Amino acid sequence: MASLNWLLGRRLASDEAELERIGPRTGVPILGLDALASAAYGPEAALTLLLPLGLAGAGHVLPLLGLIIALLGLVYVSYRQTISAYPGGGGSYTVARENLGPHAGLLAAAALALDYILNVAVGISAGVGALVSMVPSLLPHTLLLCLLILALLTIVNLRGVRESGLAFLLPTYAFVATLFVVLGIGLVKSLTSGGHPLSEVPLPIRPPSLETVSLWILVRAFASGCTAMTGVEAVSNGVPIFRKPTIVNAQRTLTAIIAILVVLLAGIGYLTRAYGIIATEPGARGYQSVLSLVTAAVVGRGPLYYTTLWSVVTVLALSANTSFADFPRLCRILAEDRYLPDFFATRGRRLVFSHGIVVLALLSGMLLIGFGGVTDRLIPLFAVGAFLAFTLSQAGMVVHWQKLGGKEARHALPLNLAGAIATGLTTIVVIVSKFAEGAWLTAAVIPMMFFGFVRIRRHYEGIGAQVRSDEPLRTAAVGPPIVVVAAQSWNKLTERGIHFAMHLSSDVHAVQVKSESVKMQDLTAQWPCLVAEPAQSAGLTVPKLVVLTSNYRQFFEPFLAYVLQLRDDHPDRDLVVVIPDLVVDHWYYRFLHNNRGAILRTLLRLRGGPRVVVVNTPFYVDGNGTSC
Amino acid sequence: MASLNWLLGRRLASDEAELERIGPRTGVPILGLDALASAAYGPEAALTLLLPLGLAGAGHVLPLLGLIIALLGLVYVSYRQTISAYPGGGGSYTVARENLGPHAGLLAAAALALDYILNVAVGISAGVGALVSMVPSLLPHTLLLCLLILALLTIVNLRGVRESGLAFLLPTYAFVATLFVVLGIGLVKSLTSGGHPLSEVPLPIRPPSLETVSLWILVRAFASGCTAMTGVEAVSNGVPIFRKPTIVNAQRTLTAIIAILVVLLAGIGYLTRAYGIIATEPGARGYQSVLSLVTAAVVGRGPLYYTTLWSVVTVLALSANTSFADFPRLCRILAEDRYLPDFFATRGRRLVFSHGIVVLALLSGMLLIGFGGVTDRLIPLFAVGAFLAFTLSQAGMVVHWQKLGGKEARHALPLNLAGAIATGLTTIVVIVSKFAEGAWLTAAVIPMMFFGFVRIRRHYEGIGAQVRSDEPLRTAAVGPPIVVVAAQSWNKLTERGIHFAMHLSSDVHAVQVKSESVKMQDLTAQWPCLVAEPAQSAGLTVPKLVVLTSNYRQFFEPFLAYVLQLRDDHPDRDLVVVIPDLVVDHWYYRFLHNNRGAILRTLLRLRGGPRVVVVNTPFYVDGNGTSC
Repeated sequence: MASLNWLLGRRLASDEAELERIGPRTGVPILGLDALASAAYGPEAALTLLLPLGLAGAGHVLPLLGLIIALLGLVYVSYRQTISAYPGGGGSYTVARENLGPHAGLLAAAALALDYILNVAVGISAGVGALVSMVPSLLPHTLLLCLLILALLTIVNLRGVRESGLAFLLPTYAFVATLFVVLGIGLVKSLTSGGHPLSEVPLPIRPPSLETVSLWILVRAFASGCTAMTGVEAVSNGVPIFRKPTIVNAQRTLTAIIAILVVLLAGIGYLTRAYGIIATEPGARGYQSVLSLVTAAVVGRGPLYYTTLWSVVTVLALSANTSFADFPRLCRILAEDRYLPDFFATRGRRLVFSHGIVVLALLSGMLLIGFGGVTDRLIPLFAVGAFLAFTLSQAGMVVHWQKLGGKEARHALPLNLAGAIATGLTTIVVIVSKFAEGAWLTAAVIPMMFFGFVRIRRHYEGIGAQVRSDEPLRTAAVGPPIVVVAAQSWNKLTERGIHFAMHLSSDVHAVQVKSESVKMQDLTAQWPCLVAEPAQSAGLTVPKLVVLTSNYRQFFEPFLAYVLQLRDDHPDRDLVVVIPDLVVDHWYYRFLHNNRGAILRTLLRLRGGPRVVVVNTPFYVDGNGTSC
Repeated sequence: MASLNWLLGRRLASDEAELERIGPRTGVPILGLDALASAAYGPEAALTLLLPLGLAGAGHVLPLLGLIIALLGLVYVSYRQTISAYPGGGGSYTVARENLGPHAGLLAAAALALDYILNVAVGISAGVGALVSMVPSLLPHTLLLCLLILALLTIVNLRGVRESGLAFLLPTYAFVATLFVVLGIGLVKSLTSGGHPLSEVPLPIRPPSLETVSLWILVRAFASGCTAMTGVEAVSNGVPIFRKPTIVNAQRTLTAIIAILVVLLAGIGYLTRAYGIIATEPGARGYQSVLSLVTAAVVGRGPLYYTTLWSVVTVLALSANTSFADFPRLCRILAEDRYLPDFFATRGRRLVFSHGIVVLALLSGMLLIGFGGVTDRLIPLFAVGAFLAFTLSQAGMVVHWQKLGGKEARHALPLNLAGAIATGLTTIVVIVSKFAEGAWLTAAVIPMMFFGFVRIRRHYEGIGAQVRSDEPLRTAAVGPPIVVVAAQSWNKLTERGIHFAMHLSSDVHAVQVKSESVKMQDLTAQWPCLVAEPAQSAGLTVPKLVVLTSNYRQFFEPFLAYVLQLRDDHPDRDLVVVIPDLVVDHWYYRFLHNNRGAILRTLLRLRGGPRVVVVNTPFYVDGNGTSC
C-alpha cells in the first residue's frame, strides 16, 4: 500500500476532481504532443516518396504541404465547431453516434481506438529510433528502452492528468522554441541571400532522377504527408478535462496546437525548398531525418543543432502520451454505452480511468515486443484510422447542423461539408495508395473491433434481461436445504464444518471418500461417539455419515457424483455444500496443501447448477509450525 | 478426457497394480539405463583429464579404470545386501534414516534428488549433443530437441512402469549388443596382433606431453572417471516395482547391470591402451568422443560404426529415464514421512506417482532451458550427490549389521565398512578436485534442500497439532449467525441472495456500496415494496438495508470494513457473507465481468478470521445474449 502511494500518489477523493482539470498551457502538452510530433514525420514521409524524382521532387514539396495545410485548416474549423457543440467530449464517436446512428459511432470508435494503440507503439519506437541513431551504442537495447519509456508513461498517467501535463510541459515547449528559432534563422538567412542560402554543412549527394513526375507518385506522397495531421482530434475527445470555461479553454488549446503545427509544416516546407534538401533513404547508410538535415543546413552542427534534435527525440517518444490521455476516455464512453466492460468507466485512485491506461499499455507493449521495438512497418497503418474518424465526425456535424437549422447552421454547414468531402476523399486515397503496405490490416482490424463492441453490448443486454427483476422478494416457505459436508477425517476443520452445517438444516450428510493412497481411517467407527451420541443427547437430528470408495484414487468424481445425485433426487430443495477450508498465513504454504477446496468449488460452479450453494468454513492455522 | 485416455492410457484400478510389476528383463532398461550410459561418459571424462600428459597418459587409464571397477564391485556387493535387507525400496534414504537417524536420511535424500534432476538434464543434453555432432544441421534446434525428448519421456512414464520398460527394451539391448560386438572384435584383433592392433582409420594426431604425471592429475582423472558409477543405486531404490520373488528379481537385475557395466568399462579401457587412443579436446575442432574413436579404430567407419554410435546416442538420451523411475518413488517415501507434500504419495491414473514425474520434468526442463540445452557445465556437479548417497547408505549398512549381529552380520559388515570408507574418500576427492568447477554449487544446494525438507515437515506437524481433535461435536446452542448480503442493485441475483440469507438467520443485513462511477440507484426507495412489505406480510423479520457511500470509488474497502466491524461487535456469533455470483457459460465471458465475488471471497479469507463464513449463491446466465 505504502509503495503504491509512493508510486502513484495518494488516493484522490471524487470531489477533488475539479483541481485535476487543466487550462490551455498544460492542455498543449497533454493533448497536443501527438499532433505536434507529426510535424517531425509528416513532411519526412512525403519527401521520402518523392526521393525517386531527385531534385525535381523538391519543387513539389511546397504545393503538397500547402494542400495538407489547407486540409488541416478545414479540419481545425470543423473540430472547433465540434467542441462547442459537444462539450461532453468523445469527439468523433459522440458526433457520429448522435447524428449518423450508433453503427457509424462504433466505426469511428474502432478507428480511433486502433489509432491510439498504434500511436503509442509508433511514437515510442520513433523516439527511441531517433535516439539510437544519435547514440548507436544503445542500438542493442532498443526494445528495453521502448518498454522503459512505456512504463514511465503508464506510471505518470496513472498519477493523474495534471501531473502528466506538468511532466511534459518542458519538453513540449523546448521542442516548439528550438524549432521556431531554427526556422526563424533559416528564414532570415534565406531572405537576406535572395532565396538561395548556403548550407552550413555539406548536404548529402543528391541522387539522380530515376522517375519522372507522375500523378500516382504525387498522390502517394500526399497520402504519406497526411500523417502530419494525426492527433488533431485529441482535443475534441478530451474536452471534459479542461477547467471552466471549458469550451473556451479547449478551443484555445486547439487553436494553439494547430497554429504551431502550421508554422512548423510551412517552415520546414519552405526551408527544404530554399536549401534544396532531399530526403535520404531510410535504413540506408548515411540516413538522416529531414529535420536533422534542415537544422544542420541552417545552424550547422553546433549546440543549437543538438538541443533541437534532442527535443525532437523527446517529443516523439512522449507523443504517445496523447493516446494515454484520450484512449481511456474513449473506453469510458464506450463502457457507459455498454460496448466495453464496466470497469473502463470507473475512475481509479488518481481520478483517471486506470483500466484504460493499463489496457493501452498492455496492448501497445505487445506491439512493441512483437515488432522488437522497431515499428516502421506500422506507420502505413496509421493514417487510415485518423482520417476515417475525421470523415465520420465531419459528416456527423453536417447532419447536426441540418437538424439544428438556423443562422449559425447556415454558416457552419458548408464548412463541415467541405471538410467531410475532403477528408473522405483523403481516406480513400490513403487506403488505396497504402493498401499493399499494410492499410489492408487496418481495414481488417477495424471491422473486427466493430463487431467485438457489438457482441459485448449484446452480451450485456442479454444478461441484463436475464437478471432484471421487478418482482418482490419470494417469501413462500420452501423446505430447508440439504447440506453436504466434505469430511475426510475427524479433526477441527471437520468439526467446524459439521457444526456449521447443523445450523443450516437438520438434513446433514457428511461424505468421506476413501482411496488406497494415503492411510485413511474409516469414520464409521468413530461416528457414534464423536457425532451421533452428542447430537442425540442434545436432541438434534444426527448427521448421516456416507463413506464412498474410489477404486481409481479419485476424490472429486465420487464426491461430485453424490452431490449431483442428491440434487436430482430432490428437485424442490436447495443443496448446500460445506467445504472446510484450511487457511494458512502465508501464500507460499498453499503449495504444500492440495487446495481441494478451491478445486471442488470450481467444479461445483461448473456443474452444480442454480440450486447448489457452496459454503467455505475457514480454519486458520499458523504455517510456521508453532501451535497457537 | 478422451484425449487424455489416448495420450496416457486408460485409468488403471488400484487392484491392477500387480500386473504393472516387472522382472529383470524389463528391469535392466528401466533401472539400468543411467548406469549403463555412464560407460559412455565415465572413461571419456577420465581420459580428457589425462590429455595434457600426451601419450604418457594412456598408460594410466587402465589402472585408474581398474580402481573404479574395484570400487564398483564393493558398491555392488553392498547394494545387493541392501536390497535383501530393505525390500521396501528407498535405497540410501531408507538405509541411512533407519540406521543413522532421520537427518542422515534426509541428507542422502537431498543428494539423490538433486542427482536425479541433474541426470535428466545432463542425459538428454548429452544424447542430443552426440546427435547434433553426427547431424550438424540440427545444431540450431538443440533446445527444441531436448525438450521434445523430455516431453516424450514424461508421457511414456506417465503411461506407467511397464510401458516405459517395453519402450526402452530395444534401444538398451541394441546398445549392449553392438558395444559387445565391437569390444569382442577389438579383443580378437588385439590378441591376434600380439597386443598391437592397427587402427582401421587414421587416429587423430597425438598432442605432445605438456605436463608430467602428478598425483593431482591422477586424482582428478579418478574423480572424473567416477561418474561412470552414477546410477548404480537405482535398483535398490526401486525394489517394490519388481514382481515376486521381489528380492531375487531385484538382485538379478542389479547383477546384470553391474556385469554389463564392468565388461564395458574394462573393454573400453583395454582397447584405448591397445590402440593408443587419447581423448580429443571437447569443443575444439575435430572433437570425437572416445567411444567413437574406439569403435572407428576397431571396425572402421562402416555400418557397424554408425549402428553403434546411434545406439549410444539413444541410450544417452534415454538414460534420463532412470530418474523418472526413481525420483517419484523417492518423493513418495519422503511424502509419506511428511517431508514433501501429500500429493507426491498419491498414485495417478496409471498407478505411477504422477506428481513426482511432472515435477521432475518441470525442474529438469527449467535446467535445460536455463542452459539452452547444453549442460556440459552441470557434469561436475553430478558425482557429488551420487557418492554422498553411496557413503551414507554403506555407513548405514554397517550400523545395520552391528545392531543385527549374528553370523551373517560378521561376514557382511567388513564389506560394507570397506565400501563406506572407499566411497567416503571418493566423495571427498570429488568435492575437493571439482570444487571450483561447480561442486561448490552442489555443496550449497544439498543443504538447502535438506532444510527445505525439515521445514516442510515442521509445517505439517505444526498444522497437524493445530487441527487434530478427539473432541466430539459441539452441540451447545449458539446464537444464529448474522448474515450480510452484497446487494448492489435489485435483480434476480440479489433476490436469490437475500432469499437464501433469510433461510440462515433472521438477522440479515443487505449492504449496498454507492460510488460516483456507475449510475447506481439507491435501494432505499425500492426497499419497502420489494422487500419489507412481502417479508412483513409473511411474518418474517425484515432484512436491514445498509447503504454505504464511498468517496474514493471503492467497493471492497467499505464493504469489508462494515463486515469486520459487525464481527467485532458480536464476538459470540458467526458471520455469514452471502455473495450472489453470476455464472456465465463460457470462460471468456468472465473478462467482461468484474469478478467482484472472487475478489471479495479472497479478501474475506485473508482478513475475515475464523468466524466469517463465505457463501456463494450462483446465478446461471447464457452469455450469448439470448434470454433463456
